[in-house]
Amino acid sequence: MATGSSGSSRSPSRRRSPPEVSVLRVGHRPGRDPRLTTHVALAARAFGARRMYLHPRDDALADRVAAVAARWGGTFEVVGVDDWKNVVRSFPGAVAHLTMYGLPLDRLLPRLARHRAILLVVGGAKVPSELYRSSTYNVAVGHQPHSEVAAIAVALERLLGLPRPVRPGEAPQRIVPTARGKRVAGTRRVR
Amino acid sequence: MATGSSGSSRSPSRRRSPPEVSVLRVGHRPGRDPRLTTHVALAARAFGARRMYLHPRDDALADRVAAVAARWGGTFEVVGVDDWKNVVRSFPGAVAHLTMYGLPLDRLLPRLARHRAILLVVGGAKVPSELYRSSTYNVAVGHQPHSEVAAIAVALERLLGLPRPVRPGEAPQRIVPTARGKRVAGTRRVR
Repeated sequence: MATGSSGSSRSPSRRRSPPEVSVLRVGHRPGRDPRLTTHVALAARAFGARRMYLHPRDDALADRVAAVAARWGGTFEVVGVDDWKNVVRSFPGAVAHLTMYGLPLDRLLPRLARHRAILLVVGGAKVPSELYRSSTYNVAVGHQPHSEVAAIAVALERLLGLPRPVRPGEAPQRIVPTARGKRVAGTRRVR
Repeated sequence: MATGSSGSSRSPSRRRSPPEVSVLRVGHRPGRDPRLTTHVALAARAFGARRMYLHPRDDALADRVAAVAARWGGTFEVVGVDDWKNVVRSFPGAVAHLTMYGLPLDRLLPRLARHRAILLVVGGAKVPSELYRSSTYNVAVGHQPHSEVAAIAVALERLLGLPRPVRPGEAPQRIVPTARGKRVAGTRRVR
């Protein structure tokens, strides 16, 4: 949507603070898809989630994402879990399972935005069918097969708005947006 | 943004038809990241791009994506290219290189939306520096490291709106959005 706004992020509401969003990634296959799950984690972090629960655990992946957070700022973390059902069951807010079979995100957004805390759940190739029942909402980010990375990013963007540039002092290293080339400010330079 | 709309996709403008968007994926590594590039292609398709140019070519990947399109509808295709610079040079519209170093998407959207055709370019780990110069715009979908899959999906969603459910007869197989479980209509069933 071309809003004509200039660089400020869209806020879901000026009256109410945005929900705190966590992500749960189930069905990770440590041997097979470390890169895809890393992309899920980095997208979750970049688009404003507070943490990603990961089942099964993958300490090497959690460490790689922690290294990114240490450099680029924020408190995002990957939390390995042994029992994902318990995360869903005990979550103090709305559980939104992202699946192409669900109801359209557009339609569910007003209801989702009422919650103070939201858990976005994404599966791998095989999603346990009980997730469809135990979730508060089954949310379709489009009704076509695509990608858990895309689903997480778009859902977060619609809930929280586009991330704004980091301000000086907020992170050890930050990007200064520029029309051409790369400008990085802070204690360390990239490449 | 909680708009309160009910299932209809957001249109960037009612006055003007949306731009035709193509994607160019450079720096694909056929041996290493077939799944990541497949996710880029499927996200591009699901969020409304018309085609994805792929450098270097990967016929197996193009075939897999064609199989998805044959089943789920639409005319999206993966077009292998030997010379990506020529795709950029000869593109009859705006070339928007998605990079965390660029100017914020929010700020560039009104300018992008004026073009009839847009080429969204995403690189892999190493992006040729000349892409920063030869693009019309360097566009940041957030200013943090994340994922080319996320960048493509969010850029398309902001340009074209969320994809709407497929109508009866539009595809061999389509999802009927539902609150619980899976409903698929058409000639073939999933799984």
